[in-house]
Amino acid sequence: MALIVQKYGGTSVGSVERIQNVAAKVAAARARGDDIVVVVSAMSGETDRLTGLANQISSRLVAREMDVLLSTGEQVTIALLAMALDAIGQPARSYTGSQVRILTDDVHTKARIKKIDGERMRADLEQGRVVIVAGFQGSDEHGNITTLGRGGSDTTAVALAAALKADECQIYTDVDGVYTTDPRVEPNARRLERITFEEMLEMASLGSKVLQIRAVEFAGKYAVPLRVLSSFAEGPGTLISLEESEMEDPIISGIAFNRDEAQLTVVGVPDHPGIASAILGPIGAANIEVDMIVQNVGSDSLTDFTFTVHKRDFATALQIMREVAGSLGAKDVRGDDDIVKVSLVGVGMRSHAGVASKTFATLARENINIRMISTSEIKISVVIDSKYLELAVRSLHKDFALDREPQDEAL
Amino acid sequence: MALIVQKYGGTSVGSVERIQNVAAKVAAARARGDDIVVVVSAMSGETDRLTGLANQISSRLVAREMDVLLSTGEQVTIALLAMALDAIGQPARSYTGSQVRILTDDVHTKARIKKIDGERMRADLEQGRVVIVAGFQGSDEHGNITTLGRGGSDTTAVALAAALKADECQIYTDVDGVYTTDPRVEPNARRLERITFEEMLEMASLGSKVLQIRAVEFAGKYAVPLRVLSSFAEGPGTLISLEESEMEDPIISGIAFNRDEAQLTVVGVPDHPGIASAILGPIGAANIEVDMIVQNVGSDSLTDFTFTVHKRDFATALQIMREVAGSLGAKDVRGDDDIVKVSLVGVGMRSHAGVASKTFATLARENINIRMISTSEIKISVVIDSKYLELAVRSLHKDFALDREPQDEAL
Repeated sequence: MALIVQKYGGTSVGSVERIQNVAAKVAAARARGDDIVVVVSAMSGETDRLTGLANQISSRLVAREMDVLLSTGEQVTIALLAMALDAIGQPARSYTGSQVRILTDDVHTKARIKKIDGERMRADLEQGRVVIVAGFQGSDEHGNITTLGRGGSDTTAVALAAALKADECQIYTDVDGVYTTDPRVEPNARRLERITFEEMLEMASLGSKVLQIRAVEFAGKYAVPLRVLSSFAEGPGTLISLEESEMEDPIISGIAFNRDEAQLTVVGVPDHPGIASAILGPIGAANIEVDMIVQNVGSDSLTDFTFTVHKRDFATALQIMREVAGSLGAKDVRGDDDIVKVSLVGVGMRSHAGVASKTFATLARENINIRMISTSEIKISVVIDSKYLELAVRSLHKDFALDREPQDEAL
Repeated sequence: MALIVQKYGGTSVGSVERIQNVAAKVAAARARGDDIVVVVSAMSGETDRLTGLANQISSRLVAREMDVLLSTGEQVTIALLAMALDAIGQPARSYTGSQVRILTDDVHTKARIKKIDGERMRADLEQGRVVIVAGFQGSDEHGNITTLGRGGSDTTAVALAAALKADECQIYTDVDGVYTTDPRVEPNARRLERITFEEMLEMASLGSKVLQIRAVEFAGKYAVPLRVLSSFAEGPGTLISLEESEMEDPIISGIAFNRDEAQLTVVGVPDHPGIASAILGPIGAANIEVDMIVQNVGSDSLTDFTFTVHKRDFATALQIMREVAGSLGAKDVRGDDDIVKVSLVGVGMRSHAGVASKTFATLARENINIRMISTSEIKISVVIDSKYLELAVRSLHKDFALDREPQDEAL
């Protein structure tokens, strides 16, 4: 008999029928003999509805009250799911974050979980009840309601699984697992049976939106086996775990891409110490996050400095750079938001040389110009013109044989 | 500097604009130097929306989960009101019933308040904050969310006022006070400056829907001065208090009526001990509540037994009576649901004889036949044909001079 934490997102509980569908899945899992703790999000659309009301009231964010407001979304879902389980004969009890003492810090709207008291949940499980917990919320040491920020229900599920020492944390979503790449771009994309936390973290941070990054970090830290699977279809999904079995590990697990970045280049700045901070200082001061950074060594002691920011910050960043260009002694500032970042991720890269050169060879063969390159131990990212996105993803997917089950292969 | 508890119902907080209107009223009261605790209901329509979702999920009432569900309604309002106060520069803090420890028994969907911990609220008031509390809800000793039943926000307000020893509990509603009778029936109906708890209780139990009966009982028990006033108009409203000043007390304070009752008569039953319980036993066993009961002493040791029930129970009660009529030895069973109960209420009745005879004289003059009479220390109720309702109310209103401010008058 295992203890399973299941999490169902907003789309999975988006209507009365879907909540009844979730109840059926939960009851079936319980009937197989496992103890089940269910974490649910607000019904899809509800958080937007509540946020809309708040925006009509005030243009200012009153963070403490926003948490009081938004936490009602999940509270509605837990009650309805408990009723739906009762209706099919499965005893259940619902709990808000405060009620099961999900203790957080006091940073309203983006609180972090500090401690969970599992006692009450264990008592219910022992009595054969399904325990239903509102995701995304907790309370601080003074009993004020807090929320973990949007999408935080994944984090709640992983934290509960860690606190209860669950055998598995299952994240039900509208996709049936993690794919080698986005199937809308590459129809031959293949569902992965398993992936490591490190790979999943890279995939998530690169724009693959299957799981929240914080939840993956949390699961990795506490070694909670995490499984992504579909609310709407049967199937084993994708298991995210610590284990790397050398025999089976492919060199590349997946290809992620991110359309949300824009590139800025400061051309021809004097190449002396401190130039990077002189350029990025004003960007950071404007609260703009920088992703990739590349500095080319140029001729005549001049250098080109290139970095990427989120598209929403592009205009601001460009303006800041143009303002400081003179004092930096730069020749020009250029910007381009018609770019895309494509990344190959795989723990197998560690033990295989030549992934980078194979990547560059594939892109060169297709006449795709690489504008930026950045590498880490398990990742290679390139920035290319956005018009080449599909071609690049498909060519790399094919050349690295991602459409086939991994074999013990060499490059 | 006084401590005032204000309560705003669902209609008063039914939209963003109305919540902003409430915020303005609260801030104005605070600006006059008083400490303010505000109790709010769910936005009008919200409780019905949530109940509708529950009904779609299950035909069975899962009481514990219903409370988890419905309590979100008020939680949304407290957060929005706190934001609206913040937006106009008035610091405020919102609290759910659980958070200010409104401890109740564990009878879900109709819990009763056992204890309130005022400490947290007092600390906020001392710091100049307005305290906003979700009406209608609390939690039991195990931390399970409970609700006080529909309309229970009035009770929350009175209970808070009692716990905090507030100077006044103000119930804001869509009428500007308690009237001598329903102005839709008698356009000359006059707003009362004050009324006693006993009178208000009678008025409420007789169908005047300005206040919840439980809230009035609670206020009377703890001697909390209660004031009914309008959310939408300025004015002093009506003060409900313990004090009776002999000089000013009118004989009659108001005329209430109730269209929801139906009359049943068991004709010609043997007049022996136990006949009343033999008739009403099966009615009680069917969970039907009986209001007025009259037994006429007839001729030949036979008696007629008449009682009233709610209209919704009329058909069932009539069927039960017809079934038991034979065993009772009754000659006939008659029923009529085309009746109305008209009641005169006033503490002044205690010290004035002749109210009953004056009432009967007025009705006789208008040729209105009285079908049943029942009296208490501060009330006279008569059952008449419903077609005479308006005529009876207007004639009594005029004869008892209710359209004029009370003088020190004799009958």
